[in-house]
Amino acid sequence: MATGNINVSVENIFPLIKKFLYSDHEIFLRELISNATDATLKMKHLTTIGETDVAYGDPKIEVKIDKENKTLHVIDQGIGMTKEEVEKYINEVAFSGAEEFLEKYKDSAKDSGIIGHFGLGFYSAFMVANKVEIITKSYKDEPAAHWVCEGTTQFTLEEADKKERGTEIILHINEDDKEFLEENRIRELLVKYNKFMPIPIKFGTKEEELELPEDAPEDAKPETKTVDNIINNPNPAWTKQPTELEDKDYKDFYRELYPMQFEDPLFHIHLNVDYPFNLTGILYFPKMSQDMNIQRDKIQLYQNQVFVTDNVEGIVPEFLTMLRGVIDSPDIPLNVSRSYLQADGAVKKISSYITRKVADKLKSLFNNNREDFEKKWNDIKIVIEYGMLSEEKFFEKADKFALYPTVDDKYFTYDELQEKIKENQTDKDGNLVILYASNQDQQHSYIESAKEKGYEVLLLDSPIVSHLLQKLETSKENISFVRVDSDHVDNLIKKDEDKISKLSDEEKEKLKADFAKVVPEKYTVQLEAMDSNAAPLIITQPEFMRRMKEMQQTGGGGMFGMGNMPEMYNLVVNTNHQLISEILNTKTEKKQKRLIKQSLDLARLSQNLLKGEELTAFIKRSFEMVK
Amino acid sequence: MATGNINVSVENIFPLIKKFLYSDHEIFLRELISNATDATLKMKHLTTIGETDVAYGDPKIEVKIDKENKTLHVIDQGIGMTKEEVEKYINEVAFSGAEEFLEKYKDSAKDSGIIGHFGLGFYSAFMVANKVEIITKSYKDEPAAHWVCEGTTQFTLEEADKKERGTEIILHINEDDKEFLEENRIRELLVKYNKFMPIPIKFGTKEEELELPEDAPEDAKPETKTVDNIINNPNPAWTKQPTELEDKDYKDFYRELYPMQFEDPLFHIHLNVDYPFNLTGILYFPKMSQDMNIQRDKIQLYQNQVFVTDNVEGIVPEFLTMLRGVIDSPDIPLNVSRSYLQADGAVKKISSYITRKVADKLKSLFNNNREDFEKKWNDIKIVIEYGMLSEEKFFEKADKFALYPTVDDKYFTYDELQEKIKENQTDKDGNLVILYASNQDQQHSYIESAKEKGYEVLLLDSPIVSHLLQKLETSKENISFVRVDSDHVDNLIKKDEDKISKLSDEEKEKLKADFAKVVPEKYTVQLEAMDSNAAPLIITQPEFMRRMKEMQQTGGGGMFGMGNMPEMYNLVVNTNHQLISEILNTKTEKKQKRLIKQSLDLARLSQNLLKGEELTAFIKRSFEMVK
Repeated sequence: MATGNINVSVENIFPLIKKFLYSDHEIFLRELISNATDATLKMKHLTTIGETDVAYGDPKIEVKIDKENKTLHVIDQGIGMTKEEVEKYINEVAFSGAEEFLEKYKDSAKDSGIIGHFGLGFYSAFMVANKVEIITKSYKDEPAAHWVCEGTTQFTLEEADKKERGTEIILHINEDDKEFLEENRIRELLVKYNKFMPIPIKFGTKEEELELPEDAPEDAKPETKTVDNIINNPNPAWTKQPTELEDKDYKDFYRELYPMQFEDPLFHIHLNVDYPFNLTGILYFPKMSQDMNIQRDKIQLYQNQVFVTDNVEGIVPEFLTMLRGVIDSPDIPLNVSRSYLQADGAVKKISSYITRKVADKLKSLFNNNREDFEKKWNDIKIVIEYGMLSEEKFFEKADKFALYPTVDDKYFTYDELQEKIKENQTDKDGNLVILYASNQDQQHSYIESAKEKGYEVLLLDSPIVSHLLQKLETSKENISFVRVDSDHVDNLIKKDEDKISKLSDEEKEKLKADFAKVVPEKYTVQLEAMDSNAAPLIITQPEFMRRMKEMQQTGGGGMFGMGNMPEMYNLVVNTNHQLISEILNTKTEKKQKRLIKQSLDLARLSQNLLKGEELTAFIKRSFEMVK
Repeated sequence: MATGNINVSVENIFPLIKKFLYSDHEIFLRELISNATDATLKMKHLTTIGETDVAYGDPKIEVKIDKENKTLHVIDQGIGMTKEEVEKYINEVAFSGAEEFLEKYKDSAKDSGIIGHFGLGFYSAFMVANKVEIITKSYKDEPAAHWVCEGTTQFTLEEADKKERGTEIILHINEDDKEFLEENRIRELLVKYNKFMPIPIKFGTKEEELELPEDAPEDAKPETKTVDNIINNPNPAWTKQPTELEDKDYKDFYRELYPMQFEDPLFHIHLNVDYPFNLTGILYFPKMSQDMNIQRDKIQLYQNQVFVTDNVEGIVPEFLTMLRGVIDSPDIPLNVSRSYLQADGAVKKISSYITRKVADKLKSLFNNNREDFEKKWNDIKIVIEYGMLSEEKFFEKADKFALYPTVDDKYFTYDELQEKIKENQTDKDGNLVILYASNQDQQHSYIESAKEKGYEVLLLDSPIVSHLLQKLETSKENISFVRVDSDHVDNLIKKDEDKISKLSDEEKEKLKADFAKVVPEKYTVQLEAMDSNAAPLIITQPEFMRRMKEMQQTGGGGMFGMGNMPEMYNLVVNTNHQLISEILNTKTEKKQKRLIKQSLDLARLSQNLLKGEELTAFIKRSFEMVK
């Protein structure tokens, strides 16, 4: 039996690293600036712990384009490297300098924010450059080094005469990648990836107006001076403690994240945890629209202030991807697939932490300022309702603060609602019947009838409401939700009441037959002995069928195939109404038919069912009647 | 000056390869089966070109779970490896055996369909296994080899007594990955990634009923025999020539791709090109719904019959991602980002090839069977209209076959439409005015008025239609689209006609004042001398504002901020109508107001503007009038 060592063939792996390490060419700049940041933070750390006498000063990272020589420069004032360190860190690919440093200074370095895997990230430079130079001077008293590599596995390394501490990376940009010699393109990348990195990044200069002396004449023009153009905010709000921040600071930061957004967010949630995982961030609740699809991809994911992605699917629970803001965590694995993310234990914990924090924040908003919470409800309900549907734990928490608004603009929690209506809205079988409308305009006459009976009518108009009702009916006991137009008002909540009809059974039979001649088949005629002041005819749509159809149409559920069933309606005829008696007693069939037709059309109008040619004819006929 | 060689540190890169080579753990099985397929195809190739006397036979790939020993086995009957080849291909990571093979047999191997990069793919096994064994016997007359590695860079290699040609890979599955010992999970992966791979894949066995003898009694139960359960279809439709396939074959294949889909596709497009890139595939046009968002991610991307992804964003032009089907191309780079894909030259060519093929197919459907094309138009228009909006080249081609249906179910091309209406629908300034409706029900009375004038009225109801009209108006000369309810019919297409009003200027002034007392501010009263048989009152909504609002509401464009403007309407009063004279001459103000109110409500009904409380009151009032 032979044993041996697997050998990684350098010539073969090197092009692979260059090609596949990152799928996006533009990433190279993020990596180089991460390295420069690390080098600077290492320097800071060494001075902080007194390892060196060298002054940390006020270091910057500079990015410079040299169009003439087709080079891009990234210059830091960090720790630098000796020739031996270049040998060690650069020439040994995948020998991670950052890891070794962290290992050595384990305890003290934990919070210094060092980003990554030095070795590999550096080589991403070869994605866009055919030749890369490093000129570097260590903080130690040793000569500078100059490393040059033209993209093969060969390099040269010699002494250089660089005097200032730090490292300069020079990229000789490929012909194919010359976009990276354009100022606008580089600025775009810096803003995208490095907007909040912890060391100031200089990119060119700008003119700044000097303050005028107090006694300057009114029309005096201020003098200007040339200053460094710093592209980033090294201390973004989420890196601070909540106690350091005012409400205004959160709003300002929102503006910084979304400069094109005119509306203020409704409120924010400051995330800050360091055990069992590290995560900071700020989430904002914006005003939500009803369309859940257009609001994704607004949360930005950072790692140690380096932008990673704006797709947080799998990290943030789906119902919260409608929020905006920033999450920063070194514990989220990068460059991995969504399905891998969803299986990752740390990510699961992060996701449930975020859910819990959001629920807690909502609870405290509800407790501390109920009035304000009610005002915001319609702008945030879609998130909460969607969360109640999709996350059981959130449902349990939200059950205490989720609101059920009525058509009269009162807001109840579920428990309050139950308490309020149980006396008047319990039916003869002991079930609590909760009435609701989905549209105040369209269901106006039905709402009015229910209110006349003293019933509370909820206004539930989210696109997913049918699913939520289904869920509530199965989580709570002995309750059912019924839309106000699903039956005539006396039947919505069935009680033991005898109703007396003016008509005899014979008359009823005749009436049914008369109506059958005129009324189309999709309406089922239903005779009811109602109040004589109620409407003569009403069209209703039974709850069950309608809700199943709605569920099918909004993302499934309900009963299979119901989405395509035709709409079914009942035509409720009030046998105690004077007009119905008149219809019954009309002698000429033509006149009777005309009366039924006009009455039916009026009933259809209140369910928005009179359309097209029939509506045109109705209007024409009615204009005649006006004359 | 020193020169040297960059060294890849094996111990450091090995975990990286394991961790980052693929972001998805489940990919390992695809890779191992790809390798097994390659090994089998290589064998086939060698026998085909007469390089060996060994018989190719009828090889399968077998996948087996051994729950007790916690191992997963992938066994092929391919080319096998000698001990020296294991050394070379397995122990030298990233030494791609497939590439070397292709290089050696360059000319003859081109069409043998060999998949990939052997060396690296194999190591993905370590994502799910802590120990991996290879037992392999080459087709050459040499002893078998047995390689074992426990996830470090150390391995053992010895002779084995395997007799049959081929390779068996044994994965000792990690505790964390034990899902890959579940039959259902493995079946799911085989169906997902290997459903159409070119070598039969056996996964367990199944019982198959034997055919009954012809003289068997009617109630005889057929006997069963145990046969291999083959999980894949090695010869999917897209790998065949269009001439080999009937319409039924395409439909059967559609069913194979989408077993849950009940409706047949409308038609298909067979893609088949080998220069300047290699691409085969079949695209299907399903019936489209109006919602463009829910239909994405139905096209599957393969490479040499290996499933890669169902996200073809960047490869297929966006408007075609609503189609279904399969694309198979070895020329599409994998594991790269979308933005990289979009910049890739080959991918751009593929995308424009697909666009062209789709346009050509539509053109030929239009030419060969116009009637059938018209029938399908409403189910496919959303794709074509979206394509016309987003791809200039497609617009030019589609302009010849895009249809404009009328409310009377006639279908015109643009040129035909122009020819048909130019005489009657050119206004006094020489502009061609094309009338359209967006909803036959809601705009019924307006459509009727236009038709009475002999105008053609198009029915354009796609959600993006306002954008398309805007585009057509700028691409064509001297035309404008006007919705039928945007003005009263005589003003839709302005001609030089004198209209005589029954009313004097004084009477008009009084009428305006009378109306102003009743009509709400959002209606602008507009007196018109119309036909005395036309309606007394009409509500119209000017084209420009309405369209700008619609464009804002459907994905931007239009004019900034218009999406939130209030709706504005005109109330057109027909001064020649008898009812208007009556209103003018009514003496009591109360009665006059009642007449105006009832007439206004009727006019609002025909624009669906009477709602809620006002509708309830109108219906109640009207029931009184019926009595």
